[in-house]
Amino acid sequence: MSFRHQLVATDGAARAGLLRTAHGDVPTPTFMPAGTAGTVKAMTADAVRATGAGIVLGNTYHLMLRPGAERVAALGGLHRFMDWPGPILTDSGGFQVMSLSKLRTMDADGVTFQSHLDGSTHRLTPERSIAIQHALDATISMAFDECTPFPATMDEARRSMELSMRWAARSRAAFSPRDGYALFGIAQGGVHPALRLASAAALTEIGFEGYAVGGLAVGEGQAAMFAVLDVTVPALPADRPRYLMGVGTPSDLVGAVARGIDMFDCVIPTRGGRTARAYTSRGVFNLRNARFAADPAPLDPGCACPACARHTRAYLHHLFRSGEMLGPILLTWHNLQYFQDLMRGLRAAIVEQRLPAHAAALSAGWTDTDEGEQAA
Amino acid sequence: MSFRHQLVATDGAARAGLLRTAHGDVPTPTFMPAGTAGTVKAMTADAVRATGAGIVLGNTYHLMLRPGAERVAALGGLHRFMDWPGPILTDSGGFQVMSLSKLRTMDADGVTFQSHLDGSTHRLTPERSIAIQHALDATISMAFDECTPFPATMDEARRSMELSMRWAARSRAAFSPRDGYALFGIAQGGVHPALRLASAAALTEIGFEGYAVGGLAVGEGQAAMFAVLDVTVPALPADRPRYLMGVGTPSDLVGAVARGIDMFDCVIPTRGGRTARAYTSRGVFNLRNARFAADPAPLDPGCACPACARHTRAYLHHLFRSGEMLGPILLTWHNLQYFQDLMRGLRAAIVEQRLPAHAAALSAGWTDTDEGEQAA
Repeated sequence: MSFRHQLVATDGAARAGLLRTAHGDVPTPTFMPAGTAGTVKAMTADAVRATGAGIVLGNTYHLMLRPGAERVAALGGLHRFMDWPGPILTDSGGFQVMSLSKLRTMDADGVTFQSHLDGSTHRLTPERSIAIQHALDATISMAFDECTPFPATMDEARRSMELSMRWAARSRAAFSPRDGYALFGIAQGGVHPALRLASAAALTEIGFEGYAVGGLAVGEGQAAMFAVLDVTVPALPADRPRYLMGVGTPSDLVGAVARGIDMFDCVIPTRGGRTARAYTSRGVFNLRNARFAADPAPLDPGCACPACARHTRAYLHHLFRSGEMLGPILLTWHNLQYFQDLMRGLRAAIVEQRLPAHAAALSAGWTDTDEGEQAA
Repeated sequence: MSFRHQLVATDGAARAGLLRTAHGDVPTPTFMPAGTAGTVKAMTADAVRATGAGIVLGNTYHLMLRPGAERVAALGGLHRFMDWPGPILTDSGGFQVMSLSKLRTMDADGVTFQSHLDGSTHRLTPERSIAIQHALDATISMAFDECTPFPATMDEARRSMELSMRWAARSRAAFSPRDGYALFGIAQGGVHPALRLASAAALTEIGFEGYAVGGLAVGEGQAAMFAVLDVTVPALPADRPRYLMGVGTPSDLVGAVARGIDMFDCVIPTRGGRTARAYTSRGVFNLRNARFAADPAPLDPGCACPACARHTRAYLHHLFRSGEMLGPILLTWHNLQYFQDLMRGLRAAIVEQRLPAHAAALSAGWTDTDEGEQAA
C-alpha cells in the first residue's frame, strides 16, 4: 500500500484526515509522543497505546549514539525494539546535533560532532542520516537539515535555509522508496515570510510524501509562530500531511490545527509528567503545590486515565512530594491522555464543522492555571 | 466474616492455605510486595495486580510522617489512597524507627525520634502505632516491637525480646477487633533458641490472629535464619498464619516455605528492579552487564510479564544504560512476577505433595547468576 494522507473533512483551514502507512493508519490531526531513545519516558508501550496514540517519535541522534542504529537493525528494527508495531517517525538528528552535542564543525557536506555521552566523534550528512533512519526502519524519515538559530538576521536565515534545501534534495536522493514509507521535507526560514515561501517552494519542487514546518517554538513566541504558519501552510501541497515540529502547548496545538497542521510532536506532556506539571481541561497545575495536599478530587474529572480514574490529586501530590516514581508514571500517562483527547476532540469538531466554537470552549476552560505555570 | 487461615494441604512442614480477610482472600504461601509509602515503587496498582499479588505492605513509619495517617484516613483509607482494594498489611514502624530515624530515645513506654525527612520530633508507642494502623485501615496490623540489633548477646536479646512482649500485650489491648481484620504478634529473640521459644510462648499466651517471625535477615545468614525457623515455627499455633518479616531471596523463600512459613515481604524484587538486578528461573542477572548488549533473547523465556513477553534482554540493557525510567518499571514488574510465580509454583507443589523435588528443580535452574550477584 502506498503512503498517503486521506482528507476526511475540513473546517476553514483545519483538516481531519487519515494517515495511511505501512505500519497502520493514524487519524489526523495527531500528536506523536516523544520516544527519543526508544522509549516514551516513564511509559510502557501498552500504556502509550492505551492513551490512543497512533504514532510515536524516535530520534536519530540519540539512537545512533546508543545503542547504535546497526544494533537496533540487528534486533529487528525500532518497532520490535520498543514494542511499537505502529508507525514511527524519526527525527533526522539535525536539531539534536545543534542542541546537545559538543564541538560541532559544520561544512557544506554535513556536520562532525562529539557525543554528549562520551565525547566520541561522529559525523552526520544527509546520506548518513537517511541511512540510519532506514536501518531503524522508520515509517516516516525526516530530511536532514540545519536548525536555524533564533534570532537570526534575514541573511543568516537565508543562508541556513538554502543549505537545508540542498540537504533536502540530497536526503530525497538518498532515501529508498518503500511502499507505505515516507520521507518528509522540512521548511525553514526563521520568522521571515519571504524565506518561508522560498523554502516551501523549494521543497515542493523536490517533492516529498509530507512536509514539516521546522525552526519554530525556539523562542519566537506564539503570535510569531502562528504568523509563520499563516504564510507557510498555504504554500504546501494540500494533498500531503503537514507536520509542525516540536510544538507545543495545548493552546499552540489548537491554533496550529486551525491553521491546517496535521501532525505534532513535543516533549511538553512527557517532560511535564516528570516535573509535576499537569495539563488538564481546567488549566496547568503544579502538583507539588500545597493546595493539592488534601484535595480528594480527581486530577481532571472527565479523564479516563489511571491517574484520574483511580486516584486523588492528594495522592499525586503525595507521590511527587515523596519522590516516588509512580508520580511521573501516572502524570505522564495523564498528560499524554490529555493531549490525545485534545486531538480527538479537535478532529471531531472539524468533522462536525464546529472547530471555532470548540476551540473557544477549550480556551475558556483553562482558567485554573497555577501561578508561574505556562498557560495551557 | 472472620479473619482466618484455612489450610488446604501440607507437605512436610510446608502449608498451602487460603488467608480469608475483610478485603478478600489470598492463597498462601504468599509474597507481599513492599508498598512502603503508599505505592509499590515503579508500579501502578494495575501492574501489581497483573503479577498476581494478593496482598501488599504499607508502612506506619513512612505514612505517619508523610502524608500523615489522619490525611490518609480523611481520603478514605490506604486502600482507596493507593487503589488497592485487596488486603493490606502494615508494618508497625518499630523497624524503621531504628533503621531510618535520627536521635532516637527509647523508654519503657515507647520511642521518641526525629523524622529522617525534616528532623521533626515524633513519638511511637504500642498504642499510637496501633491507632495509626487503624487510621490507615490496615487489614492486618502488626504489634509494635523493638528491632533487636544483630549481633546481640543473650542478655541484650532477652531484654529486647521481653520489652517487645510487653509491647505486644499493649498492642493487643489497643487493637479494636473488627470482622475480617487481624493483629499479628512478632516473635523476637535473635538467634537464641531459648529466647525464640519463650517469645513464641508469650505471644501465644496473649493470642493473635497471626504470628510473625521478626529480627531475621539482619546479617545472621541463611543457615542461622533457617535454624531459628526450625525452632520457632513448630512453637507457633498451627491454625494461624505465619509471616517471616523482611525475607528474602528466592532461595530464602523456598527454604522458609518448606519450614512452614505462609507469608513474606521483602524489598528485594522491587529494589532489584531499580538497580538492574533481575531475578529469573536461570539465576540473578545484572542487566547492565555487557553480555546482554546484543542479546535478542527474552529476559526469562517462561515469564509472561511485559518485560519478557515483549522485549529483549538487549532492550532492557539499553534502558538501564540510558537511565530510562522504563528500565526500572519493566524490571520491577518482572521481578514481582517472578516472585509471584515462584510462590504459585511452591503452592502447587505442596498441594501435589512434591515440594522437595520442586525445590530441588528450582535450585538447579539458578546456574547462570552473574558474578558478584547474590545467588537467587
